[in-house]
Amino acid sequence: MIYFDNSATTVPYDEVIDTFSEVSRSYFANPSSLHPLGKEAERLKEQARRRVGSLLKVKPEELVFTSGGTEGNNLAIKGTAYRLQTRGKHIITTGIEHTSTFEACQQLEKEGFTVTYITPDDTGRITKDQVEQALTEDTILVSMIHVSNELGSVQPVQDTGELLANYPKILFHVDHVQGMTKVPLDFKKAGIDLCTISAHKFHGLKGTGVLYIRSGITLTSQFSGGEQEGGYRGGTENLAGIVAMAKALRLSIEASNSGIDHIKQISSWIEKEVSAIDGVVLNSPRDRAPHILNFSIPNMKPEVVIQALGEKGIFVSTKSACSSKQFTPSRVLLSAGFDEPVAASAIRLSFSFENTMEEAALFTEIFKETVTSMKKVVKF
Amino acid sequence: MIYFDNSATTVPYDEVIDTFSEVSRSYFANPSSLHPLGKEAERLKEQARRRVGSLLKVKPEELVFTSGGTEGNNLAIKGTAYRLQTRGKHIITTGIEHTSTFEACQQLEKEGFTVTYITPDDTGRITKDQVEQALTEDTILVSMIHVSNELGSVQPVQDTGELLANYPKILFHVDHVQGMTKVPLDFKKAGIDLCTISAHKFHGLKGTGVLYIRSGITLTSQFSGGEQEGGYRGGTENLAGIVAMAKALRLSIEASNSGIDHIKQISSWIEKEVSAIDGVVLNSPRDRAPHILNFSIPNMKPEVVIQALGEKGIFVSTKSACSSKQFTPSRVLLSAGFDEPVAASAIRLSFSFENTMEEAALFTEIFKETVTSMKKVVKF
Ligand SMILES: Cc1ncc(COP(=O)(O)O)c(C=O)c1O
Ligand SMILES: Cc1ncc(COP(=O)(O)O)c(C=O)c1O
Repeated sequence: MIYFDNSATTVPYDEVIDTFSEVSRSYFANPSSLHPLGKEAERLKEQARRRVGSLLKVKPEELVFTSGGTEGNNLAIKGTAYRLQTRGKHIITTGIEHTSTFEACQQLEKEGFTVTYITPDDTGRITKDQVEQALTEDTILVSMIHVSNELGSVQPVQDTGELLANYPKILFHVDHVQGMTKVPLDFKKAGIDLCTISAHKFHGLKGTGVLYIRSGITLTSQFSGGEQEGGYRGGTENLAGIVAMAKALRLSIEASNSGIDHIKQISSWIEKEVSAIDGVVLNSPRDRAPHILNFSIPNMKPEVVIQALGEKGIFVSTKSACSSKQFTPSRVLLSAGFDEPVAASAIRLSFSFENTMEEAALFTEIFKETVTSMKKVVKF
Repeated sequence: MIYFDNSATTVPYDEVIDTFSEVSRSYFANPSSLHPLGKEAERLKEQARRRVGSLLKVKPEELVFTSGGTEGNNLAIKGTAYRLQTRGKHIITTGIEHTSTFEACQQLEKEGFTVTYITPDDTGRITKDQVEQALTEDTILVSMIHVSNELGSVQPVQDTGELLANYPKILFHVDHVQGMTKVPLDFKKAGIDLCTISAHKFHGLKGTGVLYIRSGITLTSQFSGGEQEGGYRGGTENLAGIVAMAKALRLSIEASNSGIDHIKQISSWIEKEVSAIDGVVLNSPRDRAPHILNFSIPNMKPEVVIQALGEKGIFVSTKSACSSKQFTPSRVLLSAGFDEPVAASAIRLSFSFENTMEEAALFTEIFKETVTSMKKVVKF
């Protein structure tokens, strides 16, 4: 099996699954219970929070444990909008956001907010100048994906943060779901107010994530309920998931030390090989994130390519998993100015630190064969 | 260890934890991915949905997998309110709801909705007549807890459902989190439109739950994002948690066949023994749910009792775990008309099918000793 769909989800580390099981068994109590079992659970939860805080270089109390990236993005964006709507109703985002950000903004538009979707250039990047031009008196939030889950393009988060330092009333939210452990980001240095991450993208478990909320910021919460997670997220905490996420984060950050260069090597090699194939056009920009490689074979249906590779034990994707079942051109690629035949035939490879050069070589070989034989069928 | 805090959370079944691990390892793919691994994950998810549907006697497509009871209640209540606000802005609920329902209603009141909180009598029950009297032209939702998590009182869900059958435009939501597997409820027969359950209350894992949404009903979703879960809950599904929940539900429903009588026996025996102790007043009504027993020792701080029992390996609680850290009288008991000394000194025992009569006997013995020696200290 060659698994090159790590932007959809990663294989959880064995140690992470074991931690989940162990915590579920030995620390099953409700962290809110007053008895000693509850207090132990509570202590473990706060220990995990401190661990995640130190890994992310932020204060533990700035972290809200969530059920994943979609919840994080929704809480950040809608939570800001509802909280600050008396101050202003304008939001700035980009044309290449993940569905969760895009749909949250679409919903807010229906409710009377105004959203500017900045169009990226053909490298899938926007600039801080575009952000500056979009600012109005009414702007309350800039929400920006760090690494595009489709193209792998990297947005100017640091620059934008520096710009927004001049506008202290405007919040800056970053969707760091794809960047985490692959493209380093210092939340504090980049002046980020809100930052979303999701554990299953770094070998943690699905249904767990973190929203970083800088001290001093208050959002409207989505889950009314108990006082858990600073009141932002009532309900009994998924303690085993939280501890497992802390472990996944530590292990994957450790792996990233040599891992980033490793996936750069793998993806550059495949990039070179694949670009040489007749009919293939590269969509990812030159300075893409190391783990995401997007290319198209115009007029060849990507779902058929994916199926053919799948039969040979190779797993890749077309656009984002969340919208992969719509057989329509990629909204993100269209926004970046790609024409429809390209936007409708994109294939995305996404790598993890666990992938190997042997897999890269085998992939390239099988991919070439597959495309060649599919071309024959198409030309029949 | 004697664990009598099963309404806060239950000990997950070993098989449930094993299922979670196995699915995390062997079906790690994103169910939205188009390749064969994704399709297998998708199949497994839909198989779990069919399993849960058949256990709950509802259609699989009427189920939305959530991150737990708090999310379920918020989605049901706010999702109805926002969806139907042009039709009306009045909601009816009871004075003894779980914090998640109570706070969701409080938030809606701030946003311009009107909420009627029906006051229960001293058995912790409201009547369908009270619901009928509260109905207005503007009512869009009746939201009712089935089994009170504090008192164990059982609300007239079936009667209320029959009443509301005459008002087809008013939705009927039931918080069945505490009732599930302990107090049977036929969603269809009771005319329920929306019903919340949470897996960690029936030996499943934290962070997983289900919201039943009757066919034909549309809510405003809380998580904008992908098309997962019928568009109600974007984001990569916690497949391992979902499959583990289906298993927990099957196992605990099987266990409930003989288990309900078993916990009735345990709790009745303790009820008799504890009521006989000087200074103890019983709060749970005579016809309470079998697994919840609430009593007070007025003027004795419950957190001290809980602590003393905890040191002896016995784990019980005061009010709901979600609000246990506020050392204030129970909102629920006050609403049911209990006076402050009683509402401020409540102790809740909650049982599972795994508890034994031996534990009951040992508990009673130790509890009597504890109260006797604490009384001496108090009277010092
Ligand atoms: C950039 C980005 N943001 C948000 C998400 C949503 O995360 P989750 O699947 O944990 O809801 C994803 C992945 O699905 C993503 O790639
Ligand atoms: C009656 C009731 N409703 C809702 C909830 C919330 O469930 P969860 O903890 O899964 O968010 C609970 C328990 O905490 C409960 O007892």
